[in-house]
Amino acid sequence: MRKLYVIGIGAGDPDQVTVQAIKAMRQVEVFFVIGKGADKQELVDVRTAILTEHVEGDYRIVEIADPPRDRMPADYQRVVQDWHDRRCTLLEAAFAQVDGVGGILVWGDPSLYDSTLRIVERVLERGAQSFDYEVIPGVTSAQSLAARHRTVLHRIGEPVHITTGRRLREDGLGPGSNLVMLDGDCAFTEIPGADLHIWWGAYLGMPDETLIEGPLREVEDEIVRRRGELRAAKGWIMDIYLLRAGT
Amino acid sequence: MRKLYVIGIGAGDPDQVTVQAIKAMRQVEVFFVIGKGADKQELVDVRTAILTEHVEGDYRIVEIADPPRDRMPADYQRVVQDWHDRRCTLLEAAFAQVDGVGGILVWGDPSLYDSTLRIVERVLERGAQSFDYEVIPGVTSAQSLAARHRTVLHRIGEPVHITTGRRLREDGLGPGSNLVMLDGDCAFTEIPGADLHIWWGAYLGMPDETLIEGPLREVEDEIVRRRGELRAAKGWIMDIYLLRAGT
Ligand SMILES: C[S@@+](CC[C@H](N)C(=O)[O-])C[C@H]1O[C@@H](n2cnc3c(N)ncnc32)[C@H](O)[C@@H]1O
Ligand SMILES: C[S@@+](CC[C@H](N)C(=O)[O-])C[C@H]1O[C@@H](n2cnc3c(N)ncnc32)[C@H](O)[C@@H]1O
Repeated sequence: MRKLYVIGIGAGDPDQVTVQAIKAMRQVEVFFVIGKGADKQELVDVRTAILTEHVEGDYRIVEIADPPRDRMPADYQRVVQDWHDRRCTLLEAAFAQVDGVGGILVWGDPSLYDSTLRIVERVLERGAQSFDYEVIPGVTSAQSLAARHRTVLHRIGEPVHITTGRRLREDGLGPGSNLVMLDGDCAFTEIPGADLHIWWGAYLGMPDETLIEGPLREVEDEIVRRRGELRAAKGWIMDIYLLRAGT
Repeated sequence: MRKLYVIGIGAGDPDQVTVQAIKAMRQVEVFFVIGKGADKQELVDVRTAILTEHVEGDYRIVEIADPPRDRMPADYQRVVQDWHDRRCTLLEAAFAQVDGVGGILVWGDPSLYDSTLRIVERVLERGAQSFDYEVIPGVTSAQSLAARHRTVLHRIGEPVHITTGRRLREDGLGPGSNLVMLDGDCAFTEIPGADLHIWWGAYLGMPDETLIEGPLREVEDEIVRRRGELRAAKGWIMDIYLLRAGT
């Protein structure tokens, strides 16, 4: 492989793809797709829709099965490292099959809670493969959430703290406005405070997009209930929220 | 005005615009451009390049002079509020001239250190104008910085703290990786710590893009010097950086 593009494609709406991403995709001969399991077919469909609409001509898609992973491990860092290692071995083998330009389409933006760049760096460090690579930024789910709620992420001049459900539960609220991703378990219900406000969104930019906003203590039960229903109906859910004191 | 689109256009490279943004722009009859002063003509040029390339047919551009503002005020919140009020009055008057669909192109994404949404909300609250509005998310300069350095913003599972130069100077480092915007004064030089690493970028996505990365204590002087030179040569600078302990 001569060159690899790691391309952010936006976080749900196929139209969130950038012109820069489209131009990069048009140079790619082989796309590597890391599978997410059958129940998340919709996430694969967004990628397919983008390619079908914007890329003509010959390209191949190589699917790489995602190695299984313990989602609630005691030693989080170690389990994630180990999972990255297994993905790395699979990617290395796939890269070895390609001569020209490869591409990986990344959900949202590659810089936010995505392991692709770490795995690519690891493949390069191992030394068996060498190639140039370039990152094309994308719209993140944080931007999508803010846009759909038509809100700014932070108060004037104040910070935004981007974190995960796990860290929110362990550390409590961070400074400023908190943007929480990867929360499988409604950690917001465990955060004390009478004056918190929440802006919640699930399946942003997708047909089942659902938004709920309001004082946390008034709407938290509704979010937990809706989230459970949606998840049961579809088999999976992807949600994100902004949380802060006041509005 | 019937409808207003507030459209994120990416943070420098005209190709960072999304398909969704282009589709929205094609519906706009009048674009409101809030001027930034002659020395930042390049920022206006990015918008013009996007419109010229992607939007055919009739549209008008209404330029609104940006009211002057104290950049180093004692009472930051108050000065910003006051500045928003003056911008609000100007926008309200401009909106009143339009019948159909208006649009505002926002640098990067409207949710991050941009006042457009707050001003639009304020115009609506005043009650003299009523219209529907929609926000189109864009790629932020945080995503651009990470992409150009080919790095993830945070360590595995850890938070990202997005803040301003002013707050970094006042509060010190926040938890996790710190992403610092709006720093007119190299606040990183005032942060103690032997093991800090910095990923710095100026004019990202633009012809003068400049990147410096390394251990903070080794590269800080070089950044201060380069930043000074670039700023002197062009009359203005826009830079952003990621800062954290370790690499
Ligand atoms: C592994 S992270 C990837 C984030 C992605 N790189 C980005 O830039 O948004 C997955 C998390 O992103 C958030 N997310 C991504 N897409 C989303 C969407 N369309 N709606 C709601 N949340 C989303 C959820 O918090 C989810 O748990
Ligand atoms: C008023 S804020 C607007 C941020 C914008 N809404 C975004 O999403 O990136 C301006 C700050 O953004 C950062 N910035 C925006 N564009 C940039 C670029 N092309 N290169 C470097 N920094 C940039 C700088 O820190 C600058 O001080």
